[in-house]
Amino acid sequence: MASSDELVVSNKQVLFKDYVSGFPKESDMQVNVSTINLKLPQDSTGILVKNLYLSCDPYMRVLMNTDEQSSSIFSSYTPGSPITGFGVAKVVESSNPNFKEGEFVWGTTGWEEYSLITSPESLFKIHHTDLPLSYYTGLLGMAGLTAYGGFYEVCNPKEGEYVYVSAASGAVGQLVGQFAKLMGCYVVGSAGSQEKVDLLKNKFGYNEAFNYKEEPDLNAALKRYFPEGIDIYFENVGGKMLDAVLLNMRTHGRIAVCGMISQYNLGEPEGTYNLMNIVYKRVRIQGFFVFDYSYEKFLEVVVPYIREGKIEYVEDIVEGLENGPAALIGLFTGRNVGKQLVVVSHN
Amino acid sequence: MASSDELVVSNKQVLFKDYVSGFPKESDMQVNVSTINLKLPQDSTGILVKNLYLSCDPYMRVLMNTDEQSSSIFSSYTPGSPITGFGVAKVVESSNPNFKEGEFVWGTTGWEEYSLITSPESLFKIHHTDLPLSYYTGLLGMAGLTAYGGFYEVCNPKEGEYVYVSAASGAVGQLVGQFAKLMGCYVVGSAGSQEKVDLLKNKFGYNEAFNYKEEPDLNAALKRYFPEGIDIYFENVGGKMLDAVLLNMRTHGRIAVCGMISQYNLGEPEGTYNLMNIVYKRVRIQGFFVFDYSYEKFLEVVVPYIREGKIEYVEDIVEGLENGPAALIGLFTGRNVGKQLVVVSHN
Repeated sequence: MASSDELVVSNKQVLFKDYVSGFPKESDMQVNVSTINLKLPQDSTGILVKNLYLSCDPYMRVLMNTDEQSSSIFSSYTPGSPITGFGVAKVVESSNPNFKEGEFVWGTTGWEEYSLITSPESLFKIHHTDLPLSYYTGLLGMAGLTAYGGFYEVCNPKEGEYVYVSAASGAVGQLVGQFAKLMGCYVVGSAGSQEKVDLLKNKFGYNEAFNYKEEPDLNAALKRYFPEGIDIYFENVGGKMLDAVLLNMRTHGRIAVCGMISQYNLGEPEGTYNLMNIVYKRVRIQGFFVFDYSYEKFLEVVVPYIREGKIEYVEDIVEGLENGPAALIGLFTGRNVGKQLVVVSHN
Repeated sequence: MASSDELVVSNKQVLFKDYVSGFPKESDMQVNVSTINLKLPQDSTGILVKNLYLSCDPYMRVLMNTDEQSSSIFSSYTPGSPITGFGVAKVVESSNPNFKEGEFVWGTTGWEEYSLITSPESLFKIHHTDLPLSYYTGLLGMAGLTAYGGFYEVCNPKEGEYVYVSAASGAVGQLVGQFAKLMGCYVVGSAGSQEKVDLLKNKFGYNEAFNYKEEPDLNAALKRYFPEGIDIYFENVGGKMLDAVLLNMRTHGRIAVCGMISQYNLGEPEGTYNLMNIVYKRVRIQGFFVFDYSYEKFLEVVVPYIREGKIEYVEDIVEGLENGPAALIGLFTGRNVGKQLVVVSHN
């Protein structure tokens, strides 16, 4: 029989099987049932959490590469261990004075029912619990701060400028477009289906939107939607789209590079050929890191927008951890409509 | 017999023959002797100048493309007309109150002995005539302002940072390296011959220098010279070098894109494959335009440096307008050592 400092429960997990090359498949992950002791060891300084909502994000594909393939910046997933990502969780037990049982947090956690977080300092406490908790996987989490930092801080936008967003209905893109509209910009987005294009125009208020899969000539498409050229490009996809955008940038244009989802599953990345336009048009291309920007400042801007109904957010919610691998893979085929997240438990 | 308002003299010119694809050849230009009236028409608001020194600059290759191939930003050369470029000239006659006969100017002029400048507002007057006049084709002209604006304003350098300069002994590169040393940076340059490498180390004070033509693996070469990575890359060449640099940038690194000489003679530009490093390392890549920066501010910095002997400048001087085409073409084979210029007349 277990002693009083043991409370062992079953713990469903999504394990990473092995390094991936090319397109990831569901079978690169494995759902497994393990156990976990919900009593912290006496000398622990960590916290135990129950995971509620898990975020599916494109960067997770990069962590499926061996370290050598990706970059020395990130640590790849460990075969045999649960994959990790951003999520919303409830504190079950805490040996850290900053976190109390029953509080909600968001940050990096495991794809499993319960996680032991040994470095809880990197977690954010959730104070606005009246807003949907799932929002902290996206709108009020990493994606939101990415859109905020990337658009306001990196792009330095001005009223009346021409803004183009690719992957425009995704977790980040839908926010960038709305931020740009609130600033008085002219905003065009692209996405990969008619349903998403409709969402861009009718739900998020983009001035125009197009399905990039139906455009044989991306340069011509951009010239049609931006006869005056593009001041700001929020880059989510890379590859051919970036090349077409470079041909259409205006003088002193800015490109915030958030990610390049079109490249993550390629054995070798595609080439970009039109970089001389950086010189011709004095373009600034800037990579950025979400946590270089203040989460508190971001909340001060975005929470009032949400309460006043000025920002819409569309989530694509999958129920059940066992359906997580398919949801994650779906990001790379564009299956999701809006922010993709996985519900582990509603409370 | 000519009337008193006519003073017709012979005028040697370098004419542009036709649009160029691939590598430019001397035979794409033609030396021709025309005539010019050294008396301005009564209704003119322009000035007549005698050209003394002409600058050979890589961007001139871009103007040999048809407008369609290059960019709507620049106007290509006109077949049958003299090529144009930056030069130093003496005012022969002026109907513009800002310019007087006998004054020296630098700016865009024709490759010919005498030029009629119809919009002299774009010319800069030369006030420091005690310094070598030829310097105004480079060190004190467009190349100097390019190095100044690109390094100080675009790169935002800090003492102790790691700086890499390609085409490092060229008109711009030799200055960037010296500016970086004066700021207390660690500076490595690359060039295409042992003679140039020696110049970088012994004349311009680069910490290290290498001959890129002897490096089969540019990534490995950069790792050798920058074990800690590169904070600032001053980009003059593009192509494979840029790709190797992207693999070696440090977090928050900056790349000032001055030009991409390796690409100008290619039918199709090479691809750049490592752009994801912009995201991984939060890199800023910035194109810029020399005349966005203050020439007066630049002179305030650089003239004292020259007078105090803190800046060296190496010129590759060709005598005679008829030798201009070969000098210009030589830029693209790396024939020149230092700033390439052509003497039309010494006074």
